[in-house]
Amino acid sequence: MKKLIKKGTYLFPTPAVMVSCTGIGTPPNIITLAWVGVVCSEPPVVSISVRPGRHSHRLIRESGAFVVNIPREDQLRELDCCGTASGRDVDKFASLGLTPVPGSQVAAPLIKECPVNLECRVIDVKSLGVHDLFLGEIVAVHMDEAVMNDKGNIDISLLRPIAYCPQAAQYWSLKEAIGTYGFTGGKLG
Amino acid sequence: MKKLIKKGTYLFPTPAVMVSCTGIGTPPNIITLAWVGVVCSEPPVVSISVRPGRHSHRLIRESGAFVVNIPREDQLRELDCCGTASGRDVDKFASLGLTPVPGSQVAAPLIKECPVNLECRVIDVKSLGVHDLFLGEIVAVHMDEAVMNDKGNIDISLLRPIAYCPQAAQYWSLKEAIGTYGFTGGKLG
Repeated sequence: MKKLIKKGTYLFPTPAVMVSCTGIGTPPNIITLAWVGVVCSEPPVVSISVRPGRHSHRLIRESGAFVVNIPREDQLRELDCCGTASGRDVDKFASLGLTPVPGSQVAAPLIKECPVNLECRVIDVKSLGVHDLFLGEIVAVHMDEAVMNDKGNIDISLLRPIAYCPQAAQYWSLKEAIGTYGFTGGKLG
Repeated sequence: MKKLIKKGTYLFPTPAVMVSCTGIGTPPNIITLAWVGVVCSEPPVVSISVRPGRHSHRLIRESGAFVVNIPREDQLRELDCCGTASGRDVDKFASLGLTPVPGSQVAAPLIKECPVNLECRVIDVKSLGVHDLFLGEIVAVHMDEAVMNDKGNIDISLLRPIAYCPQAAQYWSLKEAIGTYGFTGGKLG
């Protein structure tokens, strides 16, 4: 039996990522986000949504840039910390033992310890309500060889990214690959 | 060792959902999408990105509405089929044995067999390149009691949603909850 329930963001799963940024005359900061998605393949563009009151919101507005860092499952504590502490009160890089590395294309730092880093240049900002939507064109991608297979391609079983399930407010690990895109060939039979 | 690799959509994991829609004088259709995300909490808004040449693109433009349907892990074949066949050639509802149910708020059908359905009204469309970005305000949420716990809240272990890992082009199952948002209280120690 289906029920009509209170409206909310019942989308599962979403990515759980650490977004790094810097402002003008401010130390670099990290914010954990799950309101993140791919919005275009070519050019490659991602969206991130940030509340206007968040410290990182101002930094990203000032610099016009951010980096999406994909954490591994064993970086869950760092991920959660960066979603609950504020960069106004604490230097998250220093207190978490994380290393900011200057971006190659943008004025935002990468988190060295995360295996995948997407340097993004802000191409649009739109107010939607409690969140502002930032669209970021991916202008450089860095990947740790430790998460690549022998052909140099991403291996998800080595990466072990973290999924977020809104409403349940839970982080989930991934279990196993259950199929490759197109495996049915468009036919059920 | 980090490597600078070819630019691309290296975001993990993304949701794998079935989006249903209808046009004017055309049968309802289903398109599988992974370029989907939450973009605002209040009002609740999701984004979906669709290539302009896709059949569903025209239907969503015409109706100004779509429904995001979250499939269970055991609906993987239906999910993949709807991502590879075109609604121009085949009635996906009929051929997959799925049931269109009229939306309560929008001119787009729900997929009855999916446990969660988000009725969305298009509030903005933006061309980004090979994909157009549609922003959809969630105006109604339907949930199967079979994926709720005894308090009426979503239970992810009952839902068993499907994750997509771009670039690897793999569907992944979820394993287990590894933490609740805020579990560190913003402190690593």
